[in-house]
Amino acid sequence: MNRRRFLKGTTVLTGLFTLSPSVILSNDLEAIAKKGKKAKNIIFLISDGMSSGTLQMANLYSQNILGKNGNWMNLYAENKVSRALMDTASASSAVTDSAAASSSFGGGHRVKNGVLNIGPNGEKYLPIWQKFKNAGKKAGCVTTVTITHATPAGFCVNSDSRNAENEIAEMYADLGLDVMMGGGDEFFNASKREDKKDIYKIYEQKGYQVLKEKSDLENIKKGQKTLGVFNSGALPYTIDRNNIAELQNTPTLAEMSTAAINQMKDNENGFVLMIEGGKVDWAAHANDIAALIHDQLAFDEAVKTAIDFAEKDKETLVIITTDHGNANPGLIYGKEAVENFNSIVNYKYTNEYILNAIHADFNLQQIKDWIYQTNKISLTDEEAKHLLSFYSGLEKQETGLYNYKKLPFKAYSEIQKKHNNVGWISMDHSGDYVELAMYGLGSELLKPFVQNIELHNLMLKAAAVIA
Amino acid sequence: MNRRRFLKGTTVLTGLFTLSPSVILSNDLEAIAKKGKKAKNIIFLISDGMSSGTLQMANLYSQNILGKNGNWMNLYAENKVSRALMDTASASSAVTDSAAASSSFGGGHRVKNGVLNIGPNGEKYLPIWQKFKNAGKKAGCVTTVTITHATPAGFCVNSDSRNAENEIAEMYADLGLDVMMGGGDEFFNASKREDKKDIYKIYEQKGYQVLKEKSDLENIKKGQKTLGVFNSGALPYTIDRNNIAELQNTPTLAEMSTAAINQMKDNENGFVLMIEGGKVDWAAHANDIAALIHDQLAFDEAVKTAIDFAEKDKETLVIITTDHGNANPGLIYGKEAVENFNSIVNYKYTNEYILNAIHADFNLQQIKDWIYQTNKISLTDEEAKHLLSFYSGLEKQETGLYNYKKLPFKAYSEIQKKHNNVGWISMDHSGDYVELAMYGLGSELLKPFVQNIELHNLMLKAAAVIA
Ligand SMILES: [Zn+2]
Ligand SMILES: [Zn+2]
Repeated sequence: MNRRRFLKGTTVLTGLFTLSPSVILSNDLEAIAKKGKKAKNIIFLISDGMSSGTLQMANLYSQNILGKNGNWMNLYAENKVSRALMDTASASSAVTDSAAASSSFGGGHRVKNGVLNIGPNGEKYLPIWQKFKNAGKKAGCVTTVTITHATPAGFCVNSDSRNAENEIAEMYADLGLDVMMGGGDEFFNASKREDKKDIYKIYEQKGYQVLKEKSDLENIKKGQKTLGVFNSGALPYTIDRNNIAELQNTPTLAEMSTAAINQMKDNENGFVLMIEGGKVDWAAHANDIAALIHDQLAFDEAVKTAIDFAEKDKETLVIITTDHGNANPGLIYGKEAVENFNSIVNYKYTNEYILNAIHADFNLQQIKDWIYQTNKISLTDEEAKHLLSFYSGLEKQETGLYNYKKLPFKAYSEIQKKHNNVGWISMDHSGDYVELAMYGLGSELLKPFVQNIELHNLMLKAAAVIA
Repeated sequence: MNRRRFLKGTTVLTGLFTLSPSVILSNDLEAIAKKGKKAKNIIFLISDGMSSGTLQMANLYSQNILGKNGNWMNLYAENKVSRALMDTASASSAVTDSAAASSSFGGGHRVKNGVLNIGPNGEKYLPIWQKFKNAGKKAGCVTTVTITHATPAGFCVNSDSRNAENEIAEMYADLGLDVMMGGGDEFFNASKREDKKDIYKIYEQKGYQVLKEKSDLENIKKGQKTLGVFNSGALPYTIDRNNIAELQNTPTLAEMSTAAINQMKDNENGFVLMIEGGKVDWAAHANDIAALIHDQLAFDEAVKTAIDFAEKDKETLVIITTDHGNANPGLIYGKEAVENFNSIVNYKYTNEYILNAIHADFNLQQIKDWIYQTNKISLTDEEAKHLLSFYSGLEKQETGLYNYKKLPFKAYSEIQKKHNNVGWISMDHSGDYVELAMYGLGSELLKPFVQNIELHNLMLKAAAVIA
């Protein structure tokens, strides 16, 4: 595939073959082939916390239930991309958090977990979206979690703490980033911020249009700087949006991606865009297979959006990857493994939605009915009792990242496992090497194995931007 | 990397550049570059049941404890190989067993789990080592499990059942395979077989030398057909061999691989060799992290053996992969994740060895002392009691594949997890896509994503053998 791209390049270089073969060395040809072929645009897609099994099971679901191969895997089937394994370690651990992971791409340095582009002695590494802004490109981020969350922030700002989302909301305005969309109304809205600062107003004073609902995307003013904050907290999980009417005025990741590309693509010097499927990570933290698969498939739609643009544009580098594994989910061997897996089609909501609707005063039949209605799973008496015990206080409430409501995610996931054959190693990130694919100009720079930090310079090199 | 290899090819093709550029199309060049460049030898290495995390953690252990990068990962760092993701499904399930997986490589068809190269209507697919024998090549297999086990058998024979190891031992002799080494004395030894048939004698009558101990490898008769059966059952786990004197007269996978290559490499028409790290799979079934890492590292040594040969030989295709994931182990996020992981250096034996040494009449202090002595883990009273309860009959014995002694593998692995931060999704195979690397002649045929069955034709094509 590298060869094919290379050959495509050489056939247009008439005159090259008058050289003696012996002087045609790899570096020369690379230089010749790349002359004037720098990437004008970069789209960096991150399915946050995507383990190997997440990709495989989302694709299996797509094949078995939707009757088609996924878009990411289709790029492989059609031989369109370069691939690598990526080591995701941070400065403090072989297992990174999303802040250090994003900083590795954004700042080109490994930093400690929890930190955004700040070195051990307080060094501030200039985030890559600022470098590209300085080079005249437009820059933006879209995500399904808060737009101030670790992954978009790592491309844009320096901060001692990923939790400083209030400050990060202001920093983005100072930087004049061109398109920022996701959730996080509580970090912008004067009535929700402790300091009562109206951050939306700051953006408007700087000439931004502020979008608050999916329908606002239809009336977007082309070319104007854009802040889109479509929810308090993260955007809804895809499976919930699909099945709950009142969530449907929030955009999908692909819809935000399309809007962001359209807002920036006419810039003379090009654009850079980070697209994050942030709730893939949250679903893995919750060991929620249906939430995981549907958000991975929503990410896969955004992959198509990016590739469709890049195929027409022919001046774009697309990077598709994750920042780290999470929970290493996998389909487990067994006689009925596939039938069980396919039963996930019957899951109508996230476990968060399902478990949040259960109350301490439910009786056994009520809880059984509710689970059957939402998952087509028939609980045993014992299972129903066990689940209820987390509400009655008999069993200690579960905690965990993003488990704001202290719901019994783990207990319920273990019940589901008996029916869907999907297992998890934990409710947190893993140190696995992860999958990485590149399409377009600059993808020939990819080595088969990379450290996460190497992508920083790869992007600069692909775009021929000297930072 | 494909480009570099391609260019290396073209520089020797003087005269090529007199062609007009427009007629140099990908297919032509591929044909020209490959003219007379077929793979004479193929070495196919399988780390059985290797999940993504297994590769990552073995390499992390190698880096952190042994102070060096692993050989497999080094091939990536040095840009020497083509890579793919591989779908490992069988005819009956998205999650394969080793028989169907091996059949996919060996017969080129997906078959049902449990079966070796037999189709749904009894079709017998000619196993690929027979095809290569017919083409004049020598053919062999080495493994750390029984030589009659599913993975080597899938390259060699047809059988309704992978469990027919007695029959498979005889089939190999009939086929005249050139080098077969591993464990499985019970399938060859007249005193251990129910039918009292002396299979060793059959081999000897056919002109084979029979090796039974590691030291026999020193006196091997060069070029003579060789059967090496070095143990009853599988060969020992690497970590046990390293630490238990009486296991040291069994060869390592790399030692068997070296011997097999030496026995076959002078054949005019070349050779094919399958090398299986079979106990990586067994360690995953046991959720035994130390056994897993040390056997993966032993496999990694065999990778070096194969690549060292191929680099000198220059006529060899090396394929490095697994047949399926197993248990999806991974290093879990946490403050002390790496320190905890590194404590695995203190594990002296497999969990099988450790747990098998515990008896129902142990008192709490005895079990604590034993665990501390072998794993440097200080059990709580509760943990020691829980562990003992499996021996006293208070707790139901665990079962499971390869858990012949019904040891409490899962219970103990859950205790270890608190100390080493490694989690597992189950004690069985997973449906994950798996890692695949190719080195040498024919590796340019690899696409970025393959079905396991595609490797069958790829090998034939690489070697230009028409079957
Ligand atoms: Zn996370
Ligand atoms: Zn197995």
